[in-house]
Order: sequence, then structure tokens, then C-alpha cells
Amino acid sequence: MKAVAFDGRLILLDQRELPQRETYLEIGTAREARDAIRDMAVRGAPAIGLAAAFAMVLAAREAMATPEPRQALSDLAAMLAAARPTAVNLRHEVERALAVLEGPTGSWYEAALRHAEALVDHQCDEDRAMAENALPLFRPGMRVLTHCNTGALATGGFGTAFAAIAEAHRRLGLGEVFADETRPRLQGARLTALELARAGIPHHVIVDGAAAHFMAQRRVDLVIVGADRIGQDGRVANKIGTYGLAVSAHHHGIPFVVVAPRSSCDPSWPGAGEVEIEQRDPSEVLEFLGQRVAGAGSDALNPAFDVTPGELVTAIVREDGLYRPPYAF
Amino acid sequence: MKAVAFDGRLILLDQRELPQRETYLEIGTAREARDAIRDMAVRGAPAIGLAAAFAMVLAAREAMATPEPRQALSDLAAMLAAARPTAVNLRHEVERALAVLEGPTGSWYEAALRHAEALVDHQCDEDRAMAENALPLFRPGMRVLTHCNTGALATGGFGTAFAAIAEAHRRLGLGEVFADETRPRLQGARLTALELARAGIPHHVIVDGAAAHFMAQRRVDLVIVGADRIGQDGRVANKIGTYGLAVSAHHHGIPFVVVAPRSSCDPSWPGAGEVEIEQRDPSEVLEFLGQRVAGAGSDALNPAFDVTPGELVTAIVREDGLYRPPYAF
Repeated sequence: MKAVAFDGRLILLDQRELPQRETYLEIGTAREARDAIRDMAVRGAPAIGLAAAFAMVLAAREAMATPEPRQALSDLAAMLAAARPTAVNLRHEVERALAVLEGPTGSWYEAALRHAEALVDHQCDEDRAMAENALPLFRPGMRVLTHCNTGALATGGFGTAFAAIAEAHRRLGLGEVFADETRPRLQGARLTALELARAGIPHHVIVDGAAAHFMAQRRVDLVIVGADRIGQDGRVANKIGTYGLAVSAHHHGIPFVVVAPRSSCDPSWPGAGEVEIEQRDPSEVLEFLGQRVAGAGSDALNPAFDVTPGELVTAIVREDGLYRPPYAF
Repeated sequence: MKAVAFDGRLILLDQRELPQRETYLEIGTAREARDAIRDMAVRGAPAIGLAAAFAMVLAAREAMATPEPRQALSDLAAMLAAARPTAVNLRHEVERALAVLEGPTGSWYEAALRHAEALVDHQCDEDRAMAENALPLFRPGMRVLTHCNTGALATGGFGTAFAAIAEAHRRLGLGEVFADETRPRLQGARLTALELARAGIPHHVIVDGAAAHFMAQRRVDLVIVGADRIGQDGRVANKIGTYGLAVSAHHHGIPFVVVAPRSSCDPSWPGAGEVEIEQRDPSEVLEFLGQRVAGAGSDALNPAFDVTPGELVTAIVREDGLYRPPYAF
């Protein structure tokens, strides 16, 4: 169950079909890769970054075959970078791939491929380091609550917050994990629960609205999540619902921890403007598996992310260490 | 679209089918009524109370035909009262109906029917009074967030929190209503959105996890919900997710208001024990509209209610007035 692979084509595990079906998309063009990223066949900021790096291999191959390779590559890169607006890794990895394609056109494919493959190794090292750095936050028997999906499916390596949970369970033994189902796309119920089950970690799925209840009942010792983007002051853009968890954790004196790689950190945020919150299609809220839930006379607002201020974040764990507030990235 | 009616049979609008289909259950026995209440064809504490009063008409008729009417009535009443554990109105209305059946057996059917019909009139008066009493909490153009369903479907009259919203919109004009979809049973997306659309009130459905985000964005001026039970100190048992909303509203300095009739107040709570939180079937979380979402290796916890302490409740509106903390009911 590998989120991202490459065999001349970009192979993406179609995460929209999980846990019912394990199907793989075989993608031959940069445009198809853009579509797959936009339509969330692959999701999770680091996995999107890996997919983008391999998509740039396809882009390099296509650009090499055009009369104006440099312009073609630049256009394809811009198209890929715009597939989703909020995850900084996407733009970042497209730009990094572009930077290794400074040499002669004939070398582009090989250079982009070597770069992307090194990135996979790097992701695995990074995820291992994050899990190790998070370990001091855990105690044996702890009950942990998490949101959305941050496992191998999300990074293409071992995961961020999920890898920390899995490593803590291996080393210390956890009591239980509460997996928020994470509406509207149910990544918690569909993906995290699957990864928890496969890792043999005791867990329960709960609706997002039940998290505060279990905190009040003193059944949660730690909340741990990933991040799509971290600002210089420790503010965290992550899946919608994260901010409400942070507020509730704060209210109950429960540590709220974010695990994410340095590549998710954006020192330019907050800067001149605010981060753009991706507004996804209202049908994700109004329908389920193609069946309409709400009446025809109603519309929905569907922000994909929210922003948690650094003051509510007890610790941020990256591959280079464990940080406490005040943050200055 | 009437939640509860009676024509010799108990007529219940099957709210599980809304908004797709408007179908009515025609119920001839107390046992069928118990099943319908337990399986949530009717929901909302006051509407459950009305259904229970009419179910007691059926129970009276059945008991009258047995050799030991008093014992039979008592058994049927106990069965009805146990259909759902948390809503105090159910037990309360069963007991009130029993109390009017003190006279000769032959009069039971008529007495129970007169009692239930008076209850419907009373519910309408009560709902009107609550909406009137809540009016001082609204201002023109206000943006209001609500959870679950508290409209005519929930009370059999005009609703509690929903009637207050509708009346405020008629009298003052509201800016917008955010309707939490309210997982797991989606009463917000299915029922509240339908009632808002029919009342011509501008609104958006949002996932439960997005509520805190919209509060942080200063797009919510007031949170207003119903209650399944209110304790002597103003603690409120209501649909799962309510407590997290109250915590977030508190964090953002947004008023958090509860509208519920006196009959939802339970002066014996908290008493010797805590209120029992109904644990509903995990399939409500693990499946979505009958389709399995989570993998086979995962289970769910599905508490139907949570408890919000009175300190987080800015005001409680009943038919007899508007109360502020500290509460002493």
C-alpha cells in the first residue's frame, strides 16, 4: 500500500477508493498528474510533494520533446503548482525540481528522476526522525486523539503524526487512539482507521463533534495532528476541524502537538497577505457517495483548512527537533 | 409536514427519510410506537414527548382490552419510557399520561386522547413563548450558528431554538444561519437546512468541524441550540457536538444560548448519579447512508449526547422567561 511510486509512469494509490478498494492510477502525462492531485487521488502535504516531484519527471520528458523546452517546462510547472492552493509542499517541490533542470535539455529526464527518487529516501529518513523526536511527548498507556490522515498514505514515507503514534505504540504501548472521522472527506474513518488497524493499534473512530466530549470525560491525554503549512510564529494550517480541536484541548489542559517536516514551514507566512484557504466544492458536504443529503434549497460552505494560532500549539515536532512556544521558524 | 398527529392511529412523519421523501408511519400499537421512538423516526425531545403521549392513548386502548388493565397499562408505560434513555420528556410524558388514567378503565382511551391533544396545543403556545422570550438576544443582520434540529420537526409545535431563529428573522432580519450538518445522523443537513429553506432564511450547511473556523473568522455572532435535558445548575445535555461548540463560543466571546421548555429541565440532575449518555450503534459512524466507510478492522464509539456545564451557557430561554447564570432550576 504505497501512496506514490514511479515506473516510467507515475503510480498513485487512489486514496478516494480506500478502504473498500486498493486501486492504482497509472499516469503518463503532467496534465493527468495535475488532475489527480487536484481531485485528491493523492492527499497529505508531503505525499503531494512526492507526487509533484515525479509529475515533474513527466513534465521534463514532455518539455524535452517540444521546440521550446524551457518555456514548455515552465508552463507545465506552473500548471502543476496551481493544482491545489494551500499545501506549500506542492509549489515547493515543483520549484525544487525546476532548480535541478538547469543543465542541457537532454539530461532533464534523468535529472528529474534522480531528484524525485532521492526525495523518497529523504522522506523516509525525515519521517523516522520526526517519530523519534516526538517520543518524549508520549507515556505508556496514553490515550491519543488524532484528526484526518497523517500516515504513510499522507507522506509516501511512514507518516508524520501517525508515524509518531505508531512508534510510541511500538516502544511504550499506547492505551487507545481516537480517530476523528474528519468530515467532509472522512480521511480519518477511511484511511487513519485502516492504518491503525494494520498497525495493530487499539482505536475507535468518533465523529468530529465528539472529540470535546471525550476530552471532558478525561479519556484523552494528548492530541496530535499533522500540518499543511506552518507559519513563522507557529500558526498551523491543517484540515478543517483542527482549530476546534486545539481550542478544546486548550480548554481542558490537554497537550496539542503538531508533527510536520521543515518543508511544511513557510517563513513568509504570515506576510503581506493571509494564507489562502482552499474552498472546495459544496457537494462534498451536501452529498455523500453521489447521494444528496441536504435538500435542494440549501447550499454549503466547505473550507478545506483552518488556521490554529501558535499560542494553542503545545509543541511542534520536525525532523530537526521538538519546538516549544514562542515559535520562530 | 407535521411531526406527530393522531387519527385513531399515531401518525409519525418518518424523519429518517427527510429531506428526500415525506413518508408517514401509521402506528396502531404501543409496541410499534416504542420501536419508532427507539429507531428515531421521531426525534427531538418535545416531539418525542408528544409521540409518547399519543403512544399512551394506544397503550390505554390495549390495556382496556386485557383482564388486568392496570397491570397491562403499567407494563406498556414502562416499555415506552425505556425506548430511549436520555430525553427526559419521554419518561415525563409517559408519567403524566399515566396520572390522568386514575379513573375507571372505560374512560381511559378518551382521557388519554384529550390529554395528548391538549399537549399539542400547549406545545404550540410554549414554542411561541420561547421564541418571544429569545428575541432580546438577536439584533438585525446577525449571523447565527445552530446545531442539530430544533424546528417544528423536533417539537411537534414550532420548534425551540429554530422557532427563535425564525421569529428573529421575521421581526429583525438575520444575516445568515450556519447549520452544522450534525454527524452522525445529519439532522442539521437533512432537517434544519430544509426548515431554513422553507422559511426563506439565508443559510449555509457546514461540517461540524468548521464551526470554530467560522467563529475565528468573526462570521458568527450567536450560537443557539436546543436541549435534551437541563440540570438544576444549567448544565445542558444535548446532541453530541454541542459541548465543543460551547467551548469554542466561549473561547471567542460569542454568546452561547440554549432554548428549551421547562419540561426539559430536570431538577434532580445532577443528583446521586450522573445522567446516562445514550451510546448508539457504532454503525451510525462507521457507515454513511447505509454504505460502509471505515475498514472492517475498525470500531467506533457513538455517544448521542454530551453535557455542557452551565458556566459556558450565556442564557437559557424557556417559555417562562430568559435566564442568565448562575442558574438554579
